[in-house]
Amino acid sequence: MENLTSPAKVQDLQTPCFLIDREKVANNAKKMIDICEKFKVVLRPHMKTAKTIEAGNLMTNNTKQRITVSTIAEAEFFAANGFDDILYGYIFTYDKLARISELRKKLKSFHLMIDGEEGLQLLLDNKVEGKNWTVYLAIECGGGREGIEYDNEEKILKIAKLITNCEHIELEGLYVHDGNSYEVTGEHKLKELGNSCVEKLLKVSKHLEENDIKVKIVGQGSTPTCSIPGKKMANLNEFHPGNYIFYDVQQSVIGSCNVNEIAGRVMTRIIGHYPSRNEMLIDAGFLALSHDGKGKLPNGSYCLIYDEPRLKVTKMTQEIGYVTATRGDIDFKKYPIGSTLFLLPYHSCATAAMFSIYYLHDGEDVVDTWKPCKGW
Amino acid sequence: MENLTSPAKVQDLQTPCFLIDREKVANNAKKMIDICEKFKVVLRPHMKTAKTIEAGNLMTNNTKQRITVSTIAEAEFFAANGFDDILYGYIFTYDKLARISELRKKLKSFHLMIDGEEGLQLLLDNKVEGKNWTVYLAIECGGGREGIEYDNEEKILKIAKLITNCEHIELEGLYVHDGNSYEVTGEHKLKELGNSCVEKLLKVSKHLEENDIKVKIVGQGSTPTCSIPGKKMANLNEFHPGNYIFYDVQQSVIGSCNVNEIAGRVMTRIIGHYPSRNEMLIDAGFLALSHDGKGKLPNGSYCLIYDEPRLKVTKMTQEIGYVTATRGDIDFKKYPIGSTLFLLPYHSCATAAMFSIYYLHDGEDVVDTWKPCKGW
Repeated sequence: MENLTSPAKVQDLQTPCFLIDREKVANNAKKMIDICEKFKVVLRPHMKTAKTIEAGNLMTNNTKQRITVSTIAEAEFFAANGFDDILYGYIFTYDKLARISELRKKLKSFHLMIDGEEGLQLLLDNKVEGKNWTVYLAIECGGGREGIEYDNEEKILKIAKLITNCEHIELEGLYVHDGNSYEVTGEHKLKELGNSCVEKLLKVSKHLEENDIKVKIVGQGSTPTCSIPGKKMANLNEFHPGNYIFYDVQQSVIGSCNVNEIAGRVMTRIIGHYPSRNEMLIDAGFLALSHDGKGKLPNGSYCLIYDEPRLKVTKMTQEIGYVTATRGDIDFKKYPIGSTLFLLPYHSCATAAMFSIYYLHDGEDVVDTWKPCKGW
Repeated sequence: MENLTSPAKVQDLQTPCFLIDREKVANNAKKMIDICEKFKVVLRPHMKTAKTIEAGNLMTNNTKQRITVSTIAEAEFFAANGFDDILYGYIFTYDKLARISELRKKLKSFHLMIDGEEGLQLLLDNKVEGKNWTVYLAIECGGGREGIEYDNEEKILKIAKLITNCEHIELEGLYVHDGNSYEVTGEHKLKELGNSCVEKLLKVSKHLEENDIKVKIVGQGSTPTCSIPGKKMANLNEFHPGNYIFYDVQQSVIGSCNVNEIAGRVMTRIIGHYPSRNEMLIDAGFLALSHDGKGKLPNGSYCLIYDEPRLKVTKMTQEIGYVTATRGDIDFKKYPIGSTLFLLPYHSCATAAMFSIYYLHDGEDVVDTWKPCKGW
């Protein structure tokens, strides 16, 4: 149904569908590789946004080495396709242990993330023959998600000691997702936030080293702070951003990218004209676009509509989007039934996840299809 | 990864996962069959919520006849599994025509929906040898979605005449989705709204009959008005609700069901304790629960948490949910890392769509798996 059986034009595709601009996606991958080279920092890109082998190849510069994933399904998907040195950057529980152990057996390098004694205890109780567990300690630097608070030196030291005192577990490094970077906007603020997070991490690292605990890697992620890195980011060993492969409207609002860098978009068709309520319907509802843009843009739209600044998507049901004008009346003749619109997602991670196939295009030509990994 | 290889307990499943209570889902299906029997109305259930063969069997009382779908992928999926008499209850455009024609060839009965001349023109221009097209005319009775406004008698008559004047197209009936039923609450209001919608439809039908246009079927859908039908609903020929197979928190707020009838839930595990911010993290983010409950419940939660009235989910990232207390401090000892919570979705259509497998359970036993249709 959704397979590309022959070369096609974008306009021949059935809607709704998810399009990726081949040049933009390659440029986005290259941009982060260049930033990391300039900063002399290892790039360990996050696969959670695109979840495809092709994106993984672009993001690792075809090395297939050093990636971050958010689900075991992703780890297995990339491992099965020749990727190695995978960081499962997620707090795991006992139900995941059998699959984690299989991945440890299979891969040369497979790192886990912990932020407390529970995860550590699972590793203490479960050896994999001939292999050590390697773990990143999650540190919380203000993002308010997982991790031990950076200033809780006592707890950090306690856990780090428990790790290093165990024969079959190694401390690989420190991991922070600086999620608070999504709460600021503009170059200055992003750099300031990245720098401040680095300072916190280095303090943690220094305290551990003073207690004879070696920290091989200090890594920091988030597309905003890695796209617009402050000078101190050069003191890190690793970046692990993910969203930049597609970027999105949210990133453009934050200032991580400009709108022209957004590589992914939903193509949809007009399915109805309702002049009495100044409204059109489109065949993309929340199962295509996701609800993630709800309430986020000042004009109440769920997304930007490419090249149509006077239109907005104001409501969505499962399979239908409601389009109206930002001001005045819709020029219905300009949008015949069956004609297409292109929706730039507010959050590309959420939108991409709604599709089981992405269509790569070069201008008007569909040139490839990518199939993302699904589930957990 | 997500296959059920042997009998298991619910607690053995990896999280996040989507659970369906076998008894509740069967009862929900039976309840609507009974309502339709009582009202002497044909049930043409909508498959858009569960999208599985097993749910289709329950909802059609194992007849596999007379269903409604919202995507061509669903139509193809059910047709491939022996279902017939399928209404593709969606406004189609030219890109869908090849697949629609295949379905018309294959099925004994396959109905389309139109609300304007554009769709009709596509059917006029595209015959299927030996078969007529049968169409439902979408009428808009206040829900503000697709359809010709019920009081636009001139346009309705014009389109109806165009249909009946064409040799290879038949008018099957009138279709309305009374989506405005989601804007009222309580038995009285639901019955009033259903009745009012019936009156509008019958007026349209009468006007057409007066103009020698036969209307075989007058159908009305929406889980709220079909779950709590007003007396006049008995004047309809068809009901086409869908969500009732699972129900959800939204339906319980509207009054279509009670909370105990909700058949689907997301099982998630606690992955972190953060007492300094009175918060726990769980392994269900918006890729598991969907964002559809955002801003809908008075306490700001995205969902109800089964048997945990003092907890709420206040924020979600892609793979993480943030749980806090409705008042006071969380009793962290009650929720050890790795222990489970059960999230009752605000909107089950949105939540079910996030999963590629549903686990059926009978109490603590996992008894079956269902695989839903995906995409368009």
